[in-house]
Amino acid sequence: MSKKLRIVPIGGLGEVGKNMMAYEYEGRILIVDAGLMFPENDMMGVDYIIPDFEYLHDKSHQVVGIVITHGHEDHIGAIQHVVEYIPAPVFGTPLTTGLIDVKLARNGKSGKVDLRPVQAGETVQIGPFKVEFFHVCHSSRHAVGLAITTGAGLIVHTGDFKFDHTPADNWPTDYAKLAELGSRGVDLLLSDSTNAERPGWTPSERVIAPAFDAVFKEAPGRIIVASFASLISRMQQVADTCVKNKRKLAFVGTSMVDNAKMARQLGYLKVPDDTLISIENALTLPDDKVCIMGTGSQGEPTSIMGRLSTGTNRLFDLKAGDTVILSSHPIPGNEESVSKTINRLLRMGANVIHDAIAQVHVSGHASQEEQKLMLSLVRPRNFIPVHGELRQLRHHAKLAEQMGIAPENMLVVENGQVVELINGKLKLGERIPGGYIFVEGGSVGEHDPNLMREREQLARAGIVLINLGVDKFSNRLRDQPEVITRGFVSKEDADALIPAIQKRVTDIIHGGGLDMEKDIAQVVRSFIYNETRRKPLVFVTITKT
Amino acid sequence: MSKKLRIVPIGGLGEVGKNMMAYEYEGRILIVDAGLMFPENDMMGVDYIIPDFEYLHDKSHQVVGIVITHGHEDHIGAIQHVVEYIPAPVFGTPLTTGLIDVKLARNGKSGKVDLRPVQAGETVQIGPFKVEFFHVCHSSRHAVGLAITTGAGLIVHTGDFKFDHTPADNWPTDYAKLAELGSRGVDLLLSDSTNAERPGWTPSERVIAPAFDAVFKEAPGRIIVASFASLISRMQQVADTCVKNKRKLAFVGTSMVDNAKMARQLGYLKVPDDTLISIENALTLPDDKVCIMGTGSQGEPTSIMGRLSTGTNRLFDLKAGDTVILSSHPIPGNEESVSKTINRLLRMGANVIHDAIAQVHVSGHASQEEQKLMLSLVRPRNFIPVHGELRQLRHHAKLAEQMGIAPENMLVVENGQVVELINGKLKLGERIPGGYIFVEGGSVGEHDPNLMREREQLARAGIVLINLGVDKFSNRLRDQPEVITRGFVSKEDADALIPAIQKRVTDIIHGGGLDMEKDIAQVVRSFIYNETRRKPLVFVTITKT
Repeated sequence: MSKKLRIVPIGGLGEVGKNMMAYEYEGRILIVDAGLMFPENDMMGVDYIIPDFEYLHDKSHQVVGIVITHGHEDHIGAIQHVVEYIPAPVFGTPLTTGLIDVKLARNGKSGKVDLRPVQAGETVQIGPFKVEFFHVCHSSRHAVGLAITTGAGLIVHTGDFKFDHTPADNWPTDYAKLAELGSRGVDLLLSDSTNAERPGWTPSERVIAPAFDAVFKEAPGRIIVASFASLISRMQQVADTCVKNKRKLAFVGTSMVDNAKMARQLGYLKVPDDTLISIENALTLPDDKVCIMGTGSQGEPTSIMGRLSTGTNRLFDLKAGDTVILSSHPIPGNEESVSKTINRLLRMGANVIHDAIAQVHVSGHASQEEQKLMLSLVRPRNFIPVHGELRQLRHHAKLAEQMGIAPENMLVVENGQVVELINGKLKLGERIPGGYIFVEGGSVGEHDPNLMREREQLARAGIVLINLGVDKFSNRLRDQPEVITRGFVSKEDADALIPAIQKRVTDIIHGGGLDMEKDIAQVVRSFIYNETRRKPLVFVTITKT
Repeated sequence: MSKKLRIVPIGGLGEVGKNMMAYEYEGRILIVDAGLMFPENDMMGVDYIIPDFEYLHDKSHQVVGIVITHGHEDHIGAIQHVVEYIPAPVFGTPLTTGLIDVKLARNGKSGKVDLRPVQAGETVQIGPFKVEFFHVCHSSRHAVGLAITTGAGLIVHTGDFKFDHTPADNWPTDYAKLAELGSRGVDLLLSDSTNAERPGWTPSERVIAPAFDAVFKEAPGRIIVASFASLISRMQQVADTCVKNKRKLAFVGTSMVDNAKMARQLGYLKVPDDTLISIENALTLPDDKVCIMGTGSQGEPTSIMGRLSTGTNRLFDLKAGDTVILSSHPIPGNEESVSKTINRLLRMGANVIHDAIAQVHVSGHASQEEQKLMLSLVRPRNFIPVHGELRQLRHHAKLAEQMGIAPENMLVVENGQVVELINGKLKLGERIPGGYIFVEGGSVGEHDPNLMREREQLARAGIVLINLGVDKFSNRLRDQPEVITRGFVSKEDADALIPAIQKRVTDIIHGGGLDMEKDIAQVVRSFIYNETRRKPLVFVTITKT
């Protein structure tokens, strides 16, 4: 029997293999990453999305381990759901397992998962998978890529990476390891495609420090920095700038406070004791001695920055003289809400610094020249672009072709499409059922397109409810029809329109000859459309007595 | 009495003065532009938005003219609404009045408006306003800026502009005129801020032709170009590339076909008769002889490109070998839908070229160095940044400060804030009521935040309707409660939950002692929240007999 490695990117039509991948060899499964996606603008009411890993449910006993490449939400955010079904040990660098532990604790699962910290540079045998962890630069600290050896060959899974010659923590991507893997002979490379449409080289994390420093030097009042709660390296940069500029630092928000605490305990975040203060203390100090760091760089309305921008924060308000730094780039789909938040913060009197006008954020992902360098170092026999939508994957494949990878040695696939590596050759496998699972109000459900369509309909033109009491003998109305509208027209317009609707309905019923619920709804729909050109959902309830 | 010019930017919290401005002098009003905005992602069900010009309703007899700077939707898209209230002559270059005429015809108002074509370079006295039209480059052809002289001084209103040294139509922005105005002495400049956060100089329109040419040379099958229907210059570039590459050109979609026809009649679009063919004919030709141009570059689901991407177009479908060119840049807020459309088109087998990977579109607006050049040429005594959101306006003001304009000679304002120019000095005037008007399904209504909130609620968690028939003497249910849900949970989950809701409601009613509608709704809400952690809108209707 030939040696076969199965590569299974799990999820729906998003970035392939970004949130969850499975590698299968001889009936054993290694999962890489267990992350979440943020909902798209048309996924109404959804809190977050996780890959539908139903494919693995009845194979959970085959799973020998879950390896997490780094601690960002798109790689760990589904872990509490995954460990419910799959009781396998979870491997990651100590910072990553620390972030996972904070998350599990918040979900009442602390201590219930077998977390196995692994240092970059170490090799772990996980079932039939020999996994070599190698350090890569990314906006997350202590991120790793994986070299996975099985009887089917050696594959390299980069995870999120960039080549940063001057990273903030002075720990560059492990060129030597990548070159050594290349010499050993790599059968397959799966490489990060996020910035495949971006020419050149992503700027170093190091450029952020001078940009922060310039802002800190000029800010007349408080400085408020927004970023992601899992971005420990950014916390470190802010802390360093605080020390340099003699400002005290207060973290706000549960997730940021918890993560900062964990990272300090593990030694990954170094803030002098006399620099770090509570938000309550910070608010008693002179404005030009204070820096506050919280979440909300994506304009999320419930984040601290969202609440500050609308004047609904609990502990403190924005005031003139405040400087707000949005230390992030809008996630695709969030551009509009970020821009609105910037405008609102400006309107509240703050000065706002964001990545369009100062280098207070850089991408954590390789641009084209770095993607090419990865290909040059690893010199893979086969290539699958991952961590991107179809548009980026296609572009990454074009780059690889320019680098000499033959088209027959590449496959561009989307989540749910299995690929097999057999005797050093790529082959399309079967499609597995999958997609995304929507997490909403604490309940976890399948993605239901019908449900989303119904919500879209409700949102587009609202509802009109008509409740009728009808005498079952005479088929005449016992009362005036009750008409309720929501989200249809303004209250004044509804008040003006309802008597006309009541009259129309009464005429129909007393005219007789109609199949009641269905026909009344139809007539009301037409009437409303003629009057308003709108198409609300119309519901008719009839009580016959 | 001192001579006073009032500057009134009309609209809501969007780009200031972009869609509509009014200048008032001695009781006479000149309107500049009458455009629309595209709805934001959270404006559910809205087709488009226009400035609320209620402020002008009772002043319509004072309006001496409406001047339109160019024919894009964000400058002409509200004209059919404005002329209903304000019967003033409409001035613009002949291409602009041509585009307005097409739009009025589509709204049944052809011939009912006094359209006055004016060539760039001409001066027109409109009431007390001496208006000099000067040519500016923009992605629209035949765009103009305005020099407006009244007793209060000389102001320059740039409109949308860029400085293009090699524009596609070889007609650069009128440097000489701007310099001459500068020498004459400009009291106030209002200048386009769109790209104020963008360093450098916007690329020339000329770069598009070689990019198109490269795509046309390589495309193995049909070429389908998506752009805006009002972008006549892009139509010309596509037509020229068709002639060069021996492809026939077919326009699709009413607005694009109508605008192309008008522009050809007026001589602004030059396509040889044997190049332009109907879409029906195009579909009979060999694929590599055909180019089709339509709308949908913003991923609008109802556009041709949107329908092609979902396989729901009427006349033809995409096929492998097709090349799609998205010749535009996503309007802020549309990034996600554009990206989705690109992925869908790729999935349908098309090759997709867009501005992230080839220069098939360039901005029509000045970047920072051009904004500085405008300030250098015009040398205004006072400055108001316009045509941008607050974030861009602030940045433009900073640039102007670097150029030597004193902060006291600048005002950054938003729509609805009147500014007065008195004796050469700027002064804040009153705030006028305003905002935006939402146009939805043919009906025009005020922006109603309550209505939007209701739709948001409906979209977030759906509805649960409960209809009860109750005996008015015994207060007992005559029947099982009727429960209807929409957009709440999946059909299966609803089917499972409804009996429990019915039981709960029955228990309450037969338990007695409740104020029916209100309390039942409250109990059902709690019950549903406990079961699902969701908060649908709950409606209870009761028929007592």
